[in-house]
Amino acid sequence: MVRDVGISEVGPRDGLQMLKGIMPTEKKKAWISALAASGLPEIEVSSFVPPKLLPQMADAAEIVAFALTLPGLHVAALAPNAKGAARAIEAGAHKITLPLSVSRSHSLANVRKTPDEMVDEVRQSTRLRDASPSRPAIEVGLSTAFGCTIEGTVAESEVVRLAIAAVEAGADEVGLADTTGMANPEQIKRVIAGVRREIGDRLTGVHLHNTFGLGLANALAAYEAGLRAFDSSQAGLGGCPYAPGASGNIVTEDLVYMFESMGVRTGIDLWKLMAGRRILADAFPDEPLYGYVPAAGLPKNFRPAA
Amino acid sequence: MVRDVGISEVGPRDGLQMLKGIMPTEKKKAWISALAASGLPEIEVSSFVPPKLLPQMADAAEIVAFALTLPGLHVAALAPNAKGAARAIEAGAHKITLPLSVSRSHSLANVRKTPDEMVDEVRQSTRLRDASPSRPAIEVGLSTAFGCTIEGTVAESEVVRLAIAAVEAGADEVGLADTTGMANPEQIKRVIAGVRREIGDRLTGVHLHNTFGLGLANALAAYEAGLRAFDSSQAGLGGCPYAPGASGNIVTEDLVYMFESMGVRTGIDLWKLMAGRRILADAFPDEPLYGYVPAAGLPKNFRPAA
Repeated sequence: MVRDVGISEVGPRDGLQMLKGIMPTEKKKAWISALAASGLPEIEVSSFVPPKLLPQMADAAEIVAFALTLPGLHVAALAPNAKGAARAIEAGAHKITLPLSVSRSHSLANVRKTPDEMVDEVRQSTRLRDASPSRPAIEVGLSTAFGCTIEGTVAESEVVRLAIAAVEAGADEVGLADTTGMANPEQIKRVIAGVRREIGDRLTGVHLHNTFGLGLANALAAYEAGLRAFDSSQAGLGGCPYAPGASGNIVTEDLVYMFESMGVRTGIDLWKLMAGRRILADAFPDEPLYGYVPAAGLPKNFRPAA
Repeated sequence: MVRDVGISEVGPRDGLQMLKGIMPTEKKKAWISALAASGLPEIEVSSFVPPKLLPQMADAAEIVAFALTLPGLHVAALAPNAKGAARAIEAGAHKITLPLSVSRSHSLANVRKTPDEMVDEVRQSTRLRDASPSRPAIEVGLSTAFGCTIEGTVAESEVVRLAIAAVEAGADEVGLADTTGMANPEQIKRVIAGVRREIGDRLTGVHLHNTFGLGLANALAAYEAGLRAFDSSQAGLGGCPYAPGASGNIVTEDLVYMFESMGVRTGIDLWKLMAGRRILADAFPDEPLYGYVPAAGLPKNFRPAA
């Protein structure tokens, strides 16, 4: 399987944590199986947060264990701190993402820690990684890297500073997250260039939201700027409970369509991917499912990238 | 007023022709006034088609005459053939756009003429232009330039051939229209480069639809490829009655937001522009109005391009 870009599906984590209903564990497994069967190389399957805070994620360890049985799938999980990272390592996740919010206000609201206190959590997590037999990859996702609904503008110098701090704390990868959808394509290219100047190819990908409609334009800009890893969510589920108004990850179906139509290989079968929506529609009949391509159907001239 | 890009609002033509209801002439004037007051440099205000085919456009001459009274506004109108162009010239439009569909099937369905028969209509229209005292600009809009819902793929060599034919027939400007929303950013850049190689800066702009969600990504690609003129429609109204499933121009509000947030000056006041939606909402309470920025509100970090 040759891929030009790697798409990481975050719906089972970023999507489900935003819904009021709880998806039963068996349905999650069916959905994750369908997503994996479409050729998605990586799925962020759950989040190791205290179950009393996010009961939707109480089955994190069981879900990770199940996902590890799916052939070829890279199993990612989120952990908000070192305690969560320890649980994720124990569960056997291949990759653990720690969110590190560049905006101090958002960081305090989201994880009750300052950005620099979160750097300490990253450091503790990478020590746990080094002491573990499985040595999963630790990714730091720099949240609110392009704007904050509380603070407004986020200083690009802070994005760069915290990217360096994350790498110095031992992170294998750093991602830039537009948690609030406030990024624009020019800014995407500028921030990527600025961060890459300092940490090189430790900067791997972007996590984009579509709040103001620029999600795919921003993905295109990040691709043109040289990044090859993209988070997205089936049917655009997701958002951030502590960033009011910031709803909707970019839609996996539309992102895959954009890349494939451009001749950029994702390794994902769009028809199989769209079949996965049925499980979501059955599980959450009252939730809106987003996506232009699923609504319009694939155009007559569509050919997957060869 | 310094502008880096010119946005042409096509809602009063492309939007209204798709709606079943007819907007009363006085409401059209109020809407066009509000659009012009936001700083839009150009509005395609109507279409000179036989009123029995499109009763929504029966007041074309009166609307053009009204639009000509708005200070600084470039008044554009569509004409499907030389007969319509004659009426548009007589009405005093500054610019007349003739659609020339690259897909033979779409051309026959839309104007009952082959693409080459339409080139003859362009030639007759430019002769009328040359004989008129006002000498309006004649633009040829190459419809279905990126794909056709009937034929599927449209040959890029045909796009280039018809662009050359349009210029040889006397067109002042050529635009590329993604009537069906089937374009992708890579194709946008490739086709622009191919057409520009032959007709240089006679290629001025793009007319994009958002059917498959790539509208703004395609606009970004066209901007990066050097084009500076963009059609769009307030609230995303519009489509093509003879291209089934091809609904929705790109949304003017979101396009302006993208450019302004990137630091690209449109000369348009987004707050005033969004006020224009109220007239539409009042006139068509049952029509969906699209747009992410109008739905989410402008983000806290937004600053118009300086």
